[in-house]
Amino acid sequence: MLLLKHEEVADLLTLDETIAAVRAGLAEQAAGQAQVPPRITIDSTSGHGWLRVMPTILNGSGVMGYKAMHATPGVGVRYLVALYDLASGELLAQMDADWLTSRRTAATAAVGTDLLARQKVEEAGLLGSGEQARALLAALSRVRTPRRVKVFSPTPTNRERFAAAMSEQLGIEMVPVDSAEAAVRDSDLVASGVRAGTAPVLFGEWLAPGAHVTAISAVRPEARELDAEVWRRADVVGVDDREHVLESGDGAAAVASGAKKAEDLVELWELIGGRRPGRQNAQQITLFKSVGTALQDLCLATAIYQKARERGLGLDVGSWPHARK
Amino acid sequence: MLLLKHEEVADLLTLDETIAAVRAGLAEQAAGQAQVPPRITIDSTSGHGWLRVMPTILNGSGVMGYKAMHATPGVGVRYLVALYDLASGELLAQMDADWLTSRRTAATAAVGTDLLARQKVEEAGLLGSGEQARALLAALSRVRTPRRVKVFSPTPTNRERFAAAMSEQLGIEMVPVDSAEAAVRDSDLVASGVRAGTAPVLFGEWLAPGAHVTAISAVRPEARELDAEVWRRADVVGVDDREHVLESGDGAAAVASGAKKAEDLVELWELIGGRRPGRQNAQQITLFKSVGTALQDLCLATAIYQKARERGLGLDVGSWPHARK
Repeated sequence: MLLLKHEEVADLLTLDETIAAVRAGLAEQAAGQAQVPPRITIDSTSGHGWLRVMPTILNGSGVMGYKAMHATPGVGVRYLVALYDLASGELLAQMDADWLTSRRTAATAAVGTDLLARQKVEEAGLLGSGEQARALLAALSRVRTPRRVKVFSPTPTNRERFAAAMSEQLGIEMVPVDSAEAAVRDSDLVASGVRAGTAPVLFGEWLAPGAHVTAISAVRPEARELDAEVWRRADVVGVDDREHVLESGDGAAAVASGAKKAEDLVELWELIGGRRPGRQNAQQITLFKSVGTALQDLCLATAIYQKARERGLGLDVGSWPHARK
Repeated sequence: MLLLKHEEVADLLTLDETIAAVRAGLAEQAAGQAQVPPRITIDSTSGHGWLRVMPTILNGSGVMGYKAMHATPGVGVRYLVALYDLASGELLAQMDADWLTSRRTAATAAVGTDLLARQKVEEAGLLGSGEQARALLAALSRVRTPRRVKVFSPTPTNRERFAAAMSEQLGIEMVPVDSAEAAVRDSDLVASGVRAGTAPVLFGEWLAPGAHVTAISAVRPEARELDAEVWRRADVVGVDDREHVLESGDGAAAVASGAKKAEDLVELWELIGGRRPGRQNAQQITLFKSVGTALQDLCLATAIYQKARERGLGLDVGSWPHARK
């Protein structure tokens, strides 16, 4: 087993490698070779946060494993992925999965955008200026090239610094704007990579015809980023996991308000496999809402493991745990 | 994080320490401080075995974690437990959980016997002569002292060797017998610690009035060790996890045959907490059927971790994974 630390795995894959890994995983799912059961989340009754485990088997790739993540009040969130060889059962690696988690989310958003957004986009609007927003914008820019990106974040210096840094990094015109509405109005691509609170920050009435919306921030039952009108106006709603999106605050509100029914949500692998239709014309509004899946985690973990082995990274602790006949 | 290998954790706790740890965990569960959700099991659709993850939070003990186990055809079964400090979220240890798994099962069987069997027992009958049977008999002998133990295992040399070794180890008269029926008839304690197949090996018609039956071997849906008559004759059925016992082959057959209803199954913590009655008199037949829970795993893992720290065992890899604010 190779034990990999955050410093060893961060930035080990290029953006294109992360997107390719997620795309291959979704193709494997479309081919019926991925097993991604509902995850387990336990909220501590003593107020000490929560623990989640998400196992999956990728029969095509020949790997299996799980992500374990937990949030501790006042401390933060920790992530790990355990990766096993399916045929031999050997535990190949355990890796710190903080970097992987933000990147697989961004990479999945890029695949969702590639599947649902119009080919030609002019303006993009981004909500958020943190690490998640940075990863999201960088990934989206690998599949679509907006002429200009408007960015909103509540603190002026944050959005200004973000605009300057990302403009330099991506070579795209970036404009800080002073409201979420200003970022969203008239944008062909709209993306939310905020620190999710309990109230929506992105409202459907702002959306232009033809827009594609990416929402990756609000994943917990109590968290929100979209109002129900975003869902109501969306002609196609892509998701990474129907069941878990419906458990998110946004998904639950969309169904409760009657804006969408559960069966309206299309999983990305259904789009990739051609089982269900995506965007039909340039005027439709499309939405991709992501909560994260163990499939995405395991695809990236596999690619990270291979590169770590090539480069001789990590602590090899030998064969562990042992097998009982 | 302390990484502990099989050789380091095997035999680290005494039998009495394992029983005390499980008993304390069940008391914590009875006090409403343990969170033990249904586990996830994925059967590989490509024929490469299965993967199971079992998370739990012990709010009273201040720990949380999970067991991950997987079976690989032609290789065997591997187990690990990850143990976290609940308040800080630090991953304290990951340990090979092979030893722990057989011992927590035996320790739980001892607690079940202590709660359900008559105080005074004369004869005991044991099915099985492998490692699991050895651990089971050793644990049961800590809570009840039979005058004589009859042991059956299909291969004569196995049961003879087992009888000789355990007689010396436990100081109890051990008699190898040539059929399961001979072991079970007239026994006050009956225990099955076999390598479970797909057919019952222990039949209810053999049971004497007042007998207590322990069955720990058949945990998978396709596996069997008890016939439905064992369940039908049992006045009290104790289990470690009602839902998962009902998914086992024996539990499913008991309900399907009408021998018992789901609500007839009493969880051990309900007995410990006095919520539901146990044995009422010396003539009743009682059954304890175990499939294993993450609660049992985590109780033993906590005790193992503490002793490993005291003794300076294991590989300390530092704080891992890191926390994101």
